[in-house]
Parts: sequence; C-alpha cells; structure tokens
Amino acid sequence: MDPFIQAAIDEARLGLQEGGIPIGSVIVHKGKIIGRGHNRRVQNGSVVLHGEMDALENAGRQKAGVYRECTLYTTLSPCPMCSGAILLYGIPRVIVGENQTFMGEEDLLKGRGVDVSVVQDHQCIQLMEDFIRDAPELWNEDIGE
Amino acid sequence: MDPFIQAAIDEARLGLQEGGIPIGSVIVHKGKIIGRGHNRRVQNGSVVLHGEMDALENAGRQKAGVYRECTLYTTLSPCPMCSGAILLYGIPRVIVGENQTFMGEEDLLKGRGVDVSVVQDHQCIQLMEDFIRDAPELWNEDIGE
Repeated sequence: MDPFIQAAIDEARLGLQEGGIPIGSVIVHKGKIIGRGHNRRVQNGSVVLHGEMDALENAGRQKAGVYRECTLYTTLSPCPMCSGAILLYGIPRVIVGENQTFMGEEDLLKGRGVDVSVVQDHQCIQLMEDFIRDAPELWNEDIGE
Repeated sequence: MDPFIQAAIDEARLGLQEGGIPIGSVIVHKGKIIGRGHNRRVQNGSVVLHGEMDALENAGRQKAGVYRECTLYTTLSPCPMCSGAILLYGIPRVIVGENQTFMGEEDLLKGRGVDVSVVQDHQCIQLMEDFIRDAPELWNEDIGE
C-alpha cells in the first residue's frame, strides 16, 4: 500500500469519526506531505471544503513552482470543483483511491494534461458504499444533487 | 447599473480596503442575495476562497434545487476552480463583470450549458488593471502562475 493513499484514507476515516463525509486527501511535494485534509461539510458547515480543497487550504500559500511538482492523493474521484482547483494550481499528478461510487472530472483533467491514476482501493470503496447507504441525502448534497 | 453586479463590485472594493485582491461576488436567488463574498487570499491566507468561493461559502448549505435557480455575479471571469464549483452545484447563470484582464473558463461553462454573460464593466476593469499593476506577484499567485 502506497503510504500516501493510506494517509488520505486515514483522513477520510478521521472525517467519519467526526460525523462527516469520509473523503480524504493529501498533497505531496518531493516525497513529503505538505497538506492534508478531509471533507468538512458537516463539521464546518462548509460547501467548499471537500477533502482535496481542505488539503490545499491546509498546505497554505505555496509558490506556483511547488504546486507544479506536487502529487495530489484523494480517496475519491475529484468533483468539478476539486478538479478545477487542481487545474488552477497546475498540479500535474493525481492518484485517485476509487471511482466506482462516484466518477469525477477525470476526463477533463486528462484532457488538460494531468496524469490521473486510479487505484480502486477496497477500503476507499467500502468507506463510500457504507456512507452512501447510511446517509444518501448528505451525499447528494455534497455532489449538488 | 444592475444592482447585483454593483453589489459584487462593492465586495471587491471591500476586499481592496482590507489589503486583499479586489474580486467580489454575490449569489442571487429569486431576486435576493443569499451569499456575498470577496477574495480572501491575503486576509485569511486562503488559497481556496476566491470571491465566488467565498460567496458560496457564505451562502451556506443550500438544497440542490436552490442552486439551480441561482445567478452568480462575479467581478472577474471565473477561474477553473470557481467554474468547477459553479458546475458542481449546477448554477445555471453567471454574470461576469469583465474578462479583459483575465479570461477564465467561460468556454467550459458554456459547453456544459451554463448561460454566461459578460458586461465589461469599466469599474471592474479599472480595479483589476490597478491591482495587477501594483501587485503583480500577488496576482500571479492567485491564478497559479
């Protein structure tokens, strides 16, 4: 198991423990995590802090050259907002835990030259399957449905 | 002058007074502003709270049906992240103050069925021309360059 996808899963589990939506993300620069986060819709009442956005926010203000050497790990295929943030900051590589329970904007990312890999991790799938079964309305809210 | 684009400009000016990047936004539902905001990179050290994102955050958790009846006003053409957020929540209509100083993802939005109008307002253009001249490094940071 890639330690960085495991770190993203740890973030997702932390979010679940807080009563939130179990999606986590870490941003890695030169082999080191510079930002980690998880979805904060429930915890903060936030509509913008998806896991990837929370990781970006926690990484703080970075130089453009840093983002361009980063890899973003996320437990779930990134939605349009998070994909747009990846494009804005020019993050060149994204490792996705799974895209079976939700398919994000992977084609848009690839079309703009982002290297997207999907690992279809069983922990990531289980987290989302359980969550969507238990809280379908909350999940729909998070993806604008 | 459309009072809602004026409200977005007022937000941009408020951001400038706070020492921030002068971009503002309001979200309007059935003729009423339900969220207003401005770029908070400097004020909050935020890399995700562009003007449009701050307006969304301040509108709070809304039902999907509400977003689908909203118009988002922004003083500047929306970047990939903000455009992605507009797509995520299914906001059908965007009024853009200007796109002369920065061209965002208007084509992506239109391609997904969003009604995008650009008013080329001279106040919006002047705010950004002055800001980019005075703080080019801060501006480049905000657009990932």
